[in-house]
Amino acid sequence: MLTFYFAPHTCSLASHIALEDAGADYDLRRIDFGKTEQQSPAYLAINPKGRVPALVTPRGILTETPAMLAFVAQSFPAAKLAPLDDPFAFAEVQAFNSYLCSTVHVAHSHRMRGSRWVDAEDADSIAAMKKKVPQSVTACFELIERGMLRGPWVMGEAYTIADPYLFTLAQWLEGDRADLSRLPRVLEHRARMAERPNVNKAIAAELSS
Amino acid sequence: MLTFYFAPHTCSLASHIALEDAGADYDLRRIDFGKTEQQSPAYLAINPKGRVPALVTPRGILTETPAMLAFVAQSFPAAKLAPLDDPFAFAEVQAFNSYLCSTVHVAHSHRMRGSRWVDAEDADSIAAMKKKVPQSVTACFELIERGMLRGPWVMGEAYTIADPYLFTLAQWLEGDRADLSRLPRVLEHRARMAERPNVNKAIAAELSS
Repeated sequence: MLTFYFAPHTCSLASHIALEDAGADYDLRRIDFGKTEQQSPAYLAINPKGRVPALVTPRGILTETPAMLAFVAQSFPAAKLAPLDDPFAFAEVQAFNSYLCSTVHVAHSHRMRGSRWVDAEDADSIAAMKKKVPQSVTACFELIERGMLRGPWVMGEAYTIADPYLFTLAQWLEGDRADLSRLPRVLEHRARMAERPNVNKAIAAELSS
Repeated sequence: MLTFYFAPHTCSLASHIALEDAGADYDLRRIDFGKTEQQSPAYLAINPKGRVPALVTPRGILTETPAMLAFVAQSFPAAKLAPLDDPFAFAEVQAFNSYLCSTVHVAHSHRMRGSRWVDAEDADSIAAMKKKVPQSVTACFELIERGMLRGPWVMGEAYTIADPYLFTLAQWLEGDRADLSRLPRVLEHRARMAERPNVNKAIAAELSS
């Protein structure tokens, strides 16, 4: 049995959708960011980084979305969520996911989590970071739009673990005031994902728990 | 044949060492950051992100360190650079590498690359970011020190692709003015890595090319 720790409106949605896609049996545990529960001693014992997602498995605890997505794909091979027998094709999926976590998500985080990188009291610098988010997030997604997103799915004809991750980060485009007019293919992908029953099931479960 | 694009003193060293560890046959191409060659049309055709590393393979081009490291491990299984047949253990390696790319490297980048996240002309905010780097980088490495680094190698007894990556980012500790007194085990690991012939070969090749 797996236990999946998440918070609504965060990147944990990507792994949550992948668990649904895999047909995995798992318990869902919400971490309440409103009460800073991610910094509670009980949760820090699960994930010392104080972030979501975390996945408790019989072997131990996993964190970090790209690692978790690959784990789900490899643990449930029948679901065909990644090209597991082709190191190059698998690396392409992983390169996409790595770009999302290390560049796209990071650009977004400067809107709400600026105090990770400047003193929390430095209101001017926090504001300066926020101000750049529309531009930096749009630039990140334009690279996806023009080159990485093959269509209809990220990797082309085959749906993979890259798709729920892109969908998850694309949820934040409006909040980040990205220039949507430059991202028609990203928005098309987002709409395509939103039609999938597993996506709706995961979102509904997060909002009702 | 593989062609590996790198720049000295960047995170590309991690994949470079892994290619040596794998016994791979590859050509080395230096990208001159001093001449902003990473933004040249010729290099942007290889990697539109304008970053290193990039690995040109007969199948296509790969980017992103965690993806490249896993690709090297999977493509050269005889080198035993990752627990390839154990999805959980493989995910632990990948979670470590993902933390390095999305959190540790990002904390470091606020010292020299602040203009990614605020306007380049905003000297005060750029300076505010620089000022926090010693604290944020130390905090990142303390999590590694206290919990993630099992010793003697990152994952314990077995050397993996997590080791050259940690070594590479630990090169920057002094420049980032991290509190080294709090990181004895990280420094021990760095010294252990520095004794490996493949590490010295990779560094020497980067500095002489």
